[in-house]
Amino acid sequence: MASAVRVGLVGLGTIGTGVVRLFQEHGADIDRRLGFPLVLAAIADIDLESERGVALAGYTLHRDYKALIDDPGIDIVVELVGGTGVAAQIVRSALCAGKAVATANKALLAHKGDEIWPLAREHGTEIAFEASVCGTIPVLRALREGLAADRIQALHGIVNGTCNYILSEMEEQGEPYASALKRAQDLGYAEVDPRFDVEGTDSAHKLAILLGLAFGLRAGPGDFPVEGIERIAISDIDAAQRLGFRIKLLASARRGAEGVLACVRPCLVPRTGALAAVGGALNALVVDGAFSGRTSYSGAGAGSLPTASAVVADLMELARSRRLGAAGRVAPLGTPELAEGGLCAAAAEEGEYYVRIEASPGSGADAAAELIERLAARGVRVETLARAGRDVVVTTAPVKRAAIAAALDRRSAAGVQILRIERGL
Amino acid sequence: MASAVRVGLVGLGTIGTGVVRLFQEHGADIDRRLGFPLVLAAIADIDLESERGVALAGYTLHRDYKALIDDPGIDIVVELVGGTGVAAQIVRSALCAGKAVATANKALLAHKGDEIWPLAREHGTEIAFEASVCGTIPVLRALREGLAADRIQALHGIVNGTCNYILSEMEEQGEPYASALKRAQDLGYAEVDPRFDVEGTDSAHKLAILLGLAFGLRAGPGDFPVEGIERIAISDIDAAQRLGFRIKLLASARRGAEGVLACVRPCLVPRTGALAAVGGALNALVVDGAFSGRTSYSGAGAGSLPTASAVVADLMELARSRRLGAAGRVAPLGTPELAEGGLCAAAAEEGEYYVRIEASPGSGADAAAELIERLAARGVRVETLARAGRDVVVTTAPVKRAAIAAALDRRSAAGVQILRIERGL
Repeated sequence: MASAVRVGLVGLGTIGTGVVRLFQEHGADIDRRLGFPLVLAAIADIDLESERGVALAGYTLHRDYKALIDDPGIDIVVELVGGTGVAAQIVRSALCAGKAVATANKALLAHKGDEIWPLAREHGTEIAFEASVCGTIPVLRALREGLAADRIQALHGIVNGTCNYILSEMEEQGEPYASALKRAQDLGYAEVDPRFDVEGTDSAHKLAILLGLAFGLRAGPGDFPVEGIERIAISDIDAAQRLGFRIKLLASARRGAEGVLACVRPCLVPRTGALAAVGGALNALVVDGAFSGRTSYSGAGAGSLPTASAVVADLMELARSRRLGAAGRVAPLGTPELAEGGLCAAAAEEGEYYVRIEASPGSGADAAAELIERLAARGVRVETLARAGRDVVVTTAPVKRAAIAAALDRRSAAGVQILRIERGL
Repeated sequence: MASAVRVGLVGLGTIGTGVVRLFQEHGADIDRRLGFPLVLAAIADIDLESERGVALAGYTLHRDYKALIDDPGIDIVVELVGGTGVAAQIVRSALCAGKAVATANKALLAHKGDEIWPLAREHGTEIAFEASVCGTIPVLRALREGLAADRIQALHGIVNGTCNYILSEMEEQGEPYASALKRAQDLGYAEVDPRFDVEGTDSAHKLAILLGLAFGLRAGPGDFPVEGIERIAISDIDAAQRLGFRIKLLASARRGAEGVLACVRPCLVPRTGALAAVGGALNALVVDGAFSGRTSYSGAGAGSLPTASAVVADLMELARSRRLGAAGRVAPLGTPELAEGGLCAAAAEEGEYYVRIEASPGSGADAAAELIERLAARGVRVETLARAGRDVVVTTAPVKRAAIAAALDRRSAAGVQILRIERGL
């Protein structure tokens, strides 16, 4: 058999352990598929003692990742440490040493991509990151190669499994946000500090990557509005349901006349549509292309083995590329020359909205009349009116969000919920 | 800009015209994405006169494809003639001339793949065929690269839009097979001679390709059982609906203890599942991986521009590969070394079934009792019993199909409908 390509893994967490297991259980088949051996040779982690359910005998073990990078026998480095600190150093030093890099680190790519892409090119190597968005689902390959001939018009994704689990539980169990979050934490779906997920930050990192691939845009997660799910009340879930919708946290981008509108926000999607059917911790992406029409992708967005499957698929691609001298075959993050008009402010966008206001006890009919009147004064037409407990819920005709906010400016923000309705999904 | 890669297109039908339009409307962006020009230079068709809504000025036009193949300036040939006659000659002669080939021709690949794959390798070139299965949806890339590190356990696809349209219309309009077929023909979804689609042949060609990619199997469409939708009655659609299912024509393959079970057949799938939601002429594929779990893909399975989008994505891949000298980077059709046990007879498989028998007028209760008794005598347990007009419908516990067939052997085949229930989809 031809000479081997050797892999060094940094970070033995959930995904790292999955990568080790996948090599151990399926490595022989992977070698047959490649036609040459892809060898997991070295592992680095500050903790080499904890029991992880995989044998570490036979690998060169390092406590310091630098020793792994310095090993000239390692061709590809897998960075699975996470975060933007040490992980950035690992990726930088690996690329500078001419090694290829695979990573699942969306935070790093979203924040430091602009520094990392050129570094890879400069050193004649490349970086792969399929696992960073939608876990096991090969959506980055779909955007970068499968739909390469297309002009992407819009994309909408459920890209954070924790939020989707919490929203699904709220609907299915009828339980409030806090207890659904608690259950997600008990099951390990949510971190002890859940803010990174529930505030939409993780989804924003992934959207930043998708914006590059789909629209050629170089955008950071601070460049577009981000709203999480912490303010979704059980009364919103119920009212949405009665109106024929489900609430999902969406990472969205669409091409408009003035540029690309991008945002992360909870939205109402039709109960009968493809995204409403994506329950639990699953992820999904819906892509509208000018030529391809709509294609949809769904599957596990997290988990040790599903994510490891995407990481190892990347290793196979990097290994082939290395042997053929084809590094940089496809631009890692779309083509900036294709970006037209850049990002435009989400405030420019018109859409239908769901508005819920808290009404004081006994003021039901008055509150509804007052709400309709106030909205009408700003040119916002109410399409439907419903009650959610003692709250009043309306849906509007297409309008700019600012008009609704202006109509309600005298109410405390805590008593107002404004959510976008995405009828086409 | 770097030197151009030049494409010659053979076959100006629906997809071919879409390819021309895509180049005309989006070619500049494609060049920017590639970093070099991909030029549609020549077109061959026996009919260069018909109005197709695209300008043909500026292309070298040929009535005989041979002149196009003989042109040393053409690097890649797109075969969109269809069928296994002239198309085979076009593909063969293009590969022998060292050109790369893109095609959407599933019949050719299913029947003559074994001859074509080695030919490409022999001449140091390659063949791409994303558009041949599930049209615009990049499922072949997903199987070949995105899920490359995985062990595929099963796949189920709605891969023929014509059949899916007819079945969807039967359910939604409550109209019988014959008139749904007539409407499909009027709308151009079905050919004047619809047998190729409705008898399952087209689905079988696509399944043959999927078997190679997912399981490394070299199977022809004659190597597994194929059943179409012609015998689906409106009473089956109705009874399935009342039982909580929809009927879909599925191309299925799953790894069993004795090998891979493959077949094309109409099945009952749960109304709440992912495949039931795939309506009209759409296509979808559900893949179960040992590591990735379940991923699903859906979108347009046919149509001029959606299919052209997949063809041109292939052209971009072939062009990159050509410039980098990376032909054969990924084996076109999986790795035969990974096939374990080969195909095994579908008769070996146990599953739940839907059985409908025609009962003569007035014999309702008797017919039901007799059916249950006959099935019981062969060890087939009836789980539910329902009526469909004057017919009797039962669903069974898991059993081999042969046991049901044996129990009903004295009835005329015309009066019996046996359909697999795929509860997990």
